[in-house]
Amino acid sequence: MKTLLEAIREQRIAPEEGVEYLRKLPFEDIGFAKLDHHRSLRHGMPEVIYAAGKSPEETAEIFARMAAHGGNVLATRATQEHADAVMATTPSAEYNQRARTVALVRDATERGKGTIAILCAGTSDLPVAEEAAVTARVMGNRIELAYDIGVAGLHRLVAQCELLSTARVFIVCAGMEGALPSVVAGLVGAPVIAVPTSVGYGASFQGVTALLAMMNSCSPNVTVVNIDNGFGAAYFASMINRL
Amino acid sequence: MKTLLEAIREQRIAPEEGVEYLRKLPFEDIGFAKLDHHRSLRHGMPEVIYAAGKSPEETAEIFARMAAHGGNVLATRATQEHADAVMATTPSAEYNQRARTVALVRDATERGKGTIAILCAGTSDLPVAEEAAVTARVMGNRIELAYDIGVAGLHRLVAQCELLSTARVFIVCAGMEGALPSVVAGLVGAPVIAVPTSVGYGASFQGVTALLAMMNSCSPNVTVVNIDNGFGAAYFASMINRL
Amino acid sequence: MKTLLEAIREQRIAPEEGVEYLRKLPFEDIGFAKLDHHRSLRHGMPEVIYAAGKSPEETAEIFARMAAHGGNVLATRATQEHADAVMATTPSAEYNQRARTVALVRDATERGKGTIAILCAGTSDLPVAEEAAVTARVMGNRIELAYDIGVAGLHRLVAQCELLSTARVFIVCAGMEGALPSVVAGLVGAPVIAVPTSVGYGASFQGVTALLAMMNSCSPNVTVVNIDNGFGAAYFASMINRL
Amino acid sequence: MKTLLEAIREQRIAPEEGVEYLRKLPFEDIGFAKLDHHRSLRHGMPEVIYAAGKSPEETAEIFARMAAHGGNVLATRATQEHADAVMATTPSAEYNQRARTVALVRDATERGKGTIAILCAGTSDLPVAEEAAVTARVMGNRIELAYDIGVAGLHRLVAQCELLSTARVFIVCAGMEGALPSVVAGLVGAPVIAVPTSVGYGASFQGVTALLAMMNSCSPNVTVVNIDNGFGAAYFASMINRL
Amino acid sequence: MKTLLEAIREQRIAPEEGVEYLRKLPFEDIGFAKLDHHRSLRHGMPEVIYAAGKSPEETAEIFARMAAHGGNVLATRATQEHADAVMATTPSAEYNQRARTVALVRDATERGKGTIAILCAGTSDLPVAEEAAVTARVMGNRIELAYDIGVAGLHRLVAQCELLSTARVFIVCAGMEGALPSVVAGLVGAPVIAVPTSVGYGASFQGVTALLAMMNSCSPNVTVVNIDNGFGAAYFASMINRL
Amino acid sequence: MKTLLEAIREQRIAPEEGVEYLRKLPFEDIGFAKLDHHRSLRHGMPEVIYAAGKSPEETAEIFARMAAHGGNVLATRATQEHADAVMATTPSAEYNQRARTVALVRDATERGKGTIAILCAGTSDLPVAEEAAVTARVMGNRIELAYDIGVAGLHRLVAQCELLSTARVFIVCAGMEGALPSVVAGLVGAPVIAVPTSVGYGASFQGVTALLAMMNSCSPNVTVVNIDNGFGAAYFASMINRL
Amino acid sequence: MKTLLEAIREQRIAPEEGVEYLRKLPFEDIGFAKLDHHRSLRHGMPEVIYAAGKSPEETAEIFARMAAHGGNVLATRATQEHADAVMATTPSAEYNQRARTVALVRDATERGKGTIAILCAGTSDLPVAEEAAVTARVMGNRIELAYDIGVAGLHRLVAQCELLSTARVFIVCAGMEGALPSVVAGLVGAPVIAVPTSVGYGASFQGVTALLAMMNSCSPNVTVVNIDNGFGAAYFASMINRL
Amino acid sequence: MKTLLEAIREQRIAPEEGVEYLRKLPFEDIGFAKLDHHRSLRHGMPEVIYAAGKSPEETAEIFARMAAHGGNVLATRATQEHADAVMATTPSAEYNQRARTVALVRDATERGKGTIAILCAGTSDLPVAEEAAVTARVMGNRIELAYDIGVAGLHRLVAQCELLSTARVFIVCAGMEGALPSVVAGLVGAPVIAVPTSVGYGASFQGVTALLAMMNSCSPNVTVVNIDNGFGAAYFASMINRL
Repeated sequence: MKTLLEAIREQRIAPEEGVEYLRKLPFEDIGFAKLDHHRSLRHGMPEVIYAAGKSPEETAEIFARMAAHGGNVLATRATQEHADAVMATTPSAEYNQRARTVALVRDATERGKGTIAILCAGTSDLPVAEEAAVTARVMGNRIELAYDIGVAGLHRLVAQCELLSTARVFIVCAGMEGALPSVVAGLVGAPVIAVPTSVGYGASFQGVTALLAMMNSCSPNVTVVNIDNGFGAAYFASMINRL
Repeated sequence: MKTLLEAIREQRIAPEEGVEYLRKLPFEDIGFAKLDHHRSLRHGMPEVIYAAGKSPEETAEIFARMAAHGGNVLATRATQEHADAVMATTPSAEYNQRARTVALVRDATERGKGTIAILCAGTSDLPVAEEAAVTARVMGNRIELAYDIGVAGLHRLVAQCELLSTARVFIVCAGMEGALPSVVAGLVGAPVIAVPTSVGYGASFQGVTALLAMMNSCSPNVTVVNIDNGFGAAYFASMINRL
Repeated sequence: MKTLLEAIREQRIAPEEGVEYLRKLPFEDIGFAKLDHHRSLRHGMPEVIYAAGKSPEETAEIFARMAAHGGNVLATRATQEHADAVMATTPSAEYNQRARTVALVRDATERGKGTIAILCAGTSDLPVAEEAAVTARVMGNRIELAYDIGVAGLHRLVAQCELLSTARVFIVCAGMEGALPSVVAGLVGAPVIAVPTSVGYGASFQGVTALLAMMNSCSPNVTVVNIDNGFGAAYFASMINRL
Repeated sequence: MKTLLEAIREQRIAPEEGVEYLRKLPFEDIGFAKLDHHRSLRHGMPEVIYAAGKSPEETAEIFARMAAHGGNVLATRATQEHADAVMATTPSAEYNQRARTVALVRDATERGKGTIAILCAGTSDLPVAEEAAVTARVMGNRIELAYDIGVAGLHRLVAQCELLSTARVFIVCAGMEGALPSVVAGLVGAPVIAVPTSVGYGASFQGVTALLAMMNSCSPNVTVVNIDNGFGAAYFASMINRL
Repeated sequence: MKTLLEAIREQRIAPEEGVEYLRKLPFEDIGFAKLDHHRSLRHGMPEVIYAAGKSPEETAEIFARMAAHGGNVLATRATQEHADAVMATTPSAEYNQRARTVALVRDATERGKGTIAILCAGTSDLPVAEEAAVTARVMGNRIELAYDIGVAGLHRLVAQCELLSTARVFIVCAGMEGALPSVVAGLVGAPVIAVPTSVGYGASFQGVTALLAMMNSCSPNVTVVNIDNGFGAAYFASMINRL
Repeated sequence: MKTLLEAIREQRIAPEEGVEYLRKLPFEDIGFAKLDHHRSLRHGMPEVIYAAGKSPEETAEIFARMAAHGGNVLATRATQEHADAVMATTPSAEYNQRARTVALVRDATERGKGTIAILCAGTSDLPVAEEAAVTARVMGNRIELAYDIGVAGLHRLVAQCELLSTARVFIVCAGMEGALPSVVAGLVGAPVIAVPTSVGYGASFQGVTALLAMMNSCSPNVTVVNIDNGFGAAYFASMINRL
Repeated sequence: MKTLLEAIREQRIAPEEGVEYLRKLPFEDIGFAKLDHHRSLRHGMPEVIYAAGKSPEETAEIFARMAAHGGNVLATRATQEHADAVMATTPSAEYNQRARTVALVRDATERGKGTIAILCAGTSDLPVAEEAAVTARVMGNRIELAYDIGVAGLHRLVAQCELLSTARVFIVCAGMEGALPSVVAGLVGAPVIAVPTSVGYGASFQGVTALLAMMNSCSPNVTVVNIDNGFGAAYFASMINRL
Repeated sequence: MKTLLEAIREQRIAPEEGVEYLRKLPFEDIGFAKLDHHRSLRHGMPEVIYAAGKSPEETAEIFARMAAHGGNVLATRATQEHADAVMATTPSAEYNQRARTVALVRDATERGKGTIAILCAGTSDLPVAEEAAVTARVMGNRIELAYDIGVAGLHRLVAQCELLSTARVFIVCAGMEGALPSVVAGLVGAPVIAVPTSVGYGASFQGVTALLAMMNSCSPNVTVVNIDNGFGAAYFASMINRL
């Protein structure tokens, strides 16, 4: 902002232009959405589309506009229909059915300084873990995924001791009682991002029980994101991994 | 009931008497409560008073009436005032301040076939664990109590491996995220009774989070009792331990 | 573990092997799941698959791998599709449509010492009760199932007096107000495992009301499992019944 | 209203007066409350004050104004301070400490056609049951109160068989799992008004569990009032008992 | 029960027979349900089937068995499929699509002493109101149904003044804010049974808001039944209307 | 009312007629609904139908009856089926698929004194915002709609500074964390009506989180309507905009 | 902002100054709070302190600083201690104990164009209504307060018909079932701001039931503020009343 | 663990010793707690006591034992009584009343690589923010605290632009609608840890609304900790800041 103000003072640009600049520059309006290319540039992150609630056509158009800026592009919560529409206009994009992501990766530079470990308690948590894995990779991280290591069989967790002692950041996905992040966090000296999943039945309340349990973790190196939010966990982990 | 019916047929007792018998025998009415001596006899258990919501005087009177039947008597959720009133009339009763119990133990026969292990996650869970311990002992069980072995420090739990491999029944108390019962149950081949405690703050909701987490345990050898219900867990464990 | 340490000391195995042993032995990794054969051996229980959230193919593959170990195998929450896939590869498995279970029973040894009574309040609770019944039978128990004996018609319950006085463990399934476990527990001197069911409408909240009611049972010989968790109740009852 | 309109037409009163009449007649404004003497006359009921949230002085003044109309007056949720203030100005009023009621009974005509049975599950439910009892008596009903007959000891309930078969209306108070109304309703052929009480701990949620359980009663002759609302249950029962 | 005991004493029946009698008489076991003909006889009510969760075939068989006893029979929550199956075996039964009821009325004796008024707030509450109406008619009551008289248009309610002043019992159905029962109860001197309906969206929470509002009615002549429970309200109203 | 009373006094109409007038005039009964033409006249508003829960035929008939009074008519929550039925009988009505509205606008008089700004946080909130927009236009307001200006990109909001400083009333729609109304309200000196939307997943609980957040806004110029209630917000805004 | 940019361009102020100006001008930092005098000027409103959670000394200091700007000042949620501290430094401030407000009124200009009617359902709702009344008066409005007009006695409401037909904006406070705003809104053609109060017991959940009921009002001219938020309702009403 | 296994192999220690070592080494048992000095060493963190629920004496003893290991020690949720007891035995410890912390800082080495910014929305959030500040400082971080910058006055937030652009990690505390973390996260390119506080009233539900709002943040660089958990946020931020 100071830069803008100085430009105005030196009369390189008029104040009216300044106001216009502020108002128009940072996003592109395509009629039904405002694309904030500026934002991803600002954060050094790929551009991201949340496909749920958007039509395949809308998703494809936004995806193409973003792709026109030359960076990586990621669509999350994408159905096969979304993916088909995107790939029709952007053929080099790839669909991951389990993760429900469409990704266009042009810049595969490794930006993370270490490995992001993605652990998940059961097989049913895999879609969320995969969303995290795709996101972290698109953002330039090495990742390692370990699955089916719930707290009822600690030896399966202990068998991951190498990963536990070497990863720089942890993403731990669990549904049902949501205990895995606490146990992992007690074993490692690194930040743990807990992702409650909607896996379970009855009193699991679509992930609410797991979310509450994670919130009350007795390990202080745990923070929590929304239910099934593998994308958010990986985005946050990527920021940490670049530090 | 068949016995009663046969006694009537053989005219040893009149049907009117039979109705009277059914109506009056099984409990003693003392004006503000109905004492079900029959019930504890039927289950082979001590007589129990839930002191919360009763005045010290009422508690003392019920306690004395029960004591008159010669078995063990236990009052739970007893304040110092309750205890003082009870011990004034029943001097041999003992008060455990942390457990909030007043116990009169005359029959110390060991009725349980093995050891009941009582584990608790943190120091703050001790009152609930102690209530369970007193109850189990009054009911004739050997117990072993291990505390401060939360899931954030698994090595403290593993250090209990002897207890884990020898106890016949487990009572596991935990507040906050309530993960300990799942972890214990995964390590042992015995029934685990989980007791959520009201320990925690914020989104622990006075034990509701722990209760929900335990309900969703991924270990099938776990059942759950009400929040802070150390008494109920021990009562149930005692029944199992006599099998 | 001590055995392992001693083997290392006597140089029968190298420490590197020891680490490998710990890491690899207790489960079999089949790409999308880790099968814990060790676990069922450890507990003397059949191997179990929770089919919900797994594809028919995955379920069939896990089932076949488990069957290869020679013991009993049970899949729960299985649809007809799951069952068809399993039976294509394991023809001797049997599907119970109401219970939604696929069971392979090779070892019919009776391991339980007494009868497990499974009571349910209404006709609509039968699927949950059946899941419990199949599970208990696969685990080597004699069971007896009594249905449609809700608390609004106590005479129907009283008519079960023989079962009430002879069973060693009780599983009581109820939806709506969830009162049956309390009433049964007051009549018997044996442990009662309460299973809330999602039967009801309006303020039954898919079983939450029943769960809360059972949690607050005034009978101390009651513990509770998750909503519709007939499998867990039977697993726990089987453990008790072997004591 | 038609009467009023006719009076206007026949010019016995002016329309302006009519408006005044409608606006002023039905209640008395005493500055901080509007007393609806008209209402109790209309329903043939005593005048009632809900003392909670009112100062002792306000309560006493309202009580005195109501007493000036010559009928019965009842204050509920009254502390000792409320009672002292009321009895200072209305010496013939009587305070019931357990029920927290102050009652002035001038007209003891029996208006109810049968007996109202008031049953309560435990000793701790007595304050609510007493509030119902006082209310029903002030409204001219014969009542019978039976306590400590929870569902965990059915024989205590069965011992009340005479009351169960003769009462015309039932009020059933219960906390914890709230099962008693269902059981009673299954035994009797009369209307049952269920009153959840705030008795219990942990997952009883101050009566919410009991309320939900009663709402889901499998007996159709049950309706429910608010938690601890002994007054409302008795008021409703009185209306029925006059039919 | 006394009768039975006396019969035994006078040796008219053997005690073994007595036990058998108690156990077998009061219901008929048809393999998947226990029909309690005794119960409806005891209460002087029609026999009732809750069809939800039962197959059309089961429903039809139960219906036919009940019809064989000669009284009125009512199935609630019946789909067209249920109705078709029932009417195939019991052609004289009638289906009411809006109320989702199948009714067989042989005994049209008027048993209620007055009119039951059924009021509903909006057009969308009609299915619940109709269920109440059919139930009340099958139970021998005169009913009057008034609809679309929500509290936002009081003049529509006031227009019902004749019904308001003459009915003996009121059933008031409302969703959304559930205010109508309070307003009606303030206008009439008769008992009001409030039925919350699941009508609404957003924060109506499928009827929970209406249920809670009705529970907190400031009119004491209101009791509440479960969400959408038109049947229960009418059953209860019928009991009152026979007094 | 006074007018009516005076008419009676001057004997221009008979009291019987007066009662009839009151009872019959204000609405039209068409068998399954009571149309309150009087109400919209009284408020100077169009007539409105809530189509959800009504059949296309019912909706079309009500629409036609309302159209017969000559004013504007609006149906909300209308599916394509509702729209087809309405337009078959009222061809000049227009369907807005995104807003789910059918509108008949005959009177396009501008009645609002200023502009109503309708802001929405994300693209997915558009259906709710559109419902508000259509409603406000039918009621004679100038509106301006700004979308995709969520709080995570404040510059997009700031770019709306002209609208922020000129609109007379604001409607702000947001799902997820529901923060936009607070932020907007802090920037403007005009009333803000917040509309929580059901947009989001996991712990958004179909709009409940947004609703609660808006309820707790730290800006005092915010009030809230029900989840997804774009119609109500616009109706309220129209009332304000006419002041 | 444009003004600022132009001043910079014309070199009347340096950009560094501009940044400073933006950063420092709009509020005064007093060490533990940032006073936003600018804000109240911007909105033409008095300065307001939320005293809850602030010490009497902090409150008094903030009050004095605000008073130094010469406008009206209002502290809400103030205890007697808060009031004493404020009046020690600002003697002309006045405390209203029931409303828990301390107000300093220097500018009594009438700014509202009409009357704000403040209605409350019961005597216990008066503190909230009084907070609204004080706030509205400090903001320059004529107000009229009507109390004890709950929906159970509609004639008391109807008696307010003059107020109902003349007020420009309505604030309606109610606890328990929260029905009054819907009923009032149905009678008037003006905006209604509903304030749920925490009055009630049991299932009123400290105002949550009233809040939900108001959210679901079937009258479209109702919006809602937080529980007990009399201040917010009056602030919003004042904004409307100035339009 | 591998180190231990190798030491055993090389016969430097006996396997029995190895088991003992594992069991005893990592914590010190002081009768009512197990102190895990190992853990803080392992994580390179100070030792921490959660004082809530511990007596002053217990707290002081644990504090002294921890202090004996020579590192930094921190007690959180400490009352004045806790502080007095601790400082009696450890005089160099310091009490921060607002933060409710007792801290012993011997090692003031700066371990964090950048500044941790701690922002809070209102004055009432300060205790939570201070707990975070003390914790972060004890862990060797530079911190900067900015308060009273709620979303209703964005200019106060913008005035913090220097801090916003330079800090390496953000902790954002907010109660009520909990919107500040989303807004901050949209402005910065760094990780944001959101702390919901229990500040607010009515529908803020002691911080639950803020927690839910933060969980649903539309900014992906936000994770959340438990309500009022300033300690946990700072612990997590410290871990990140050391990366």
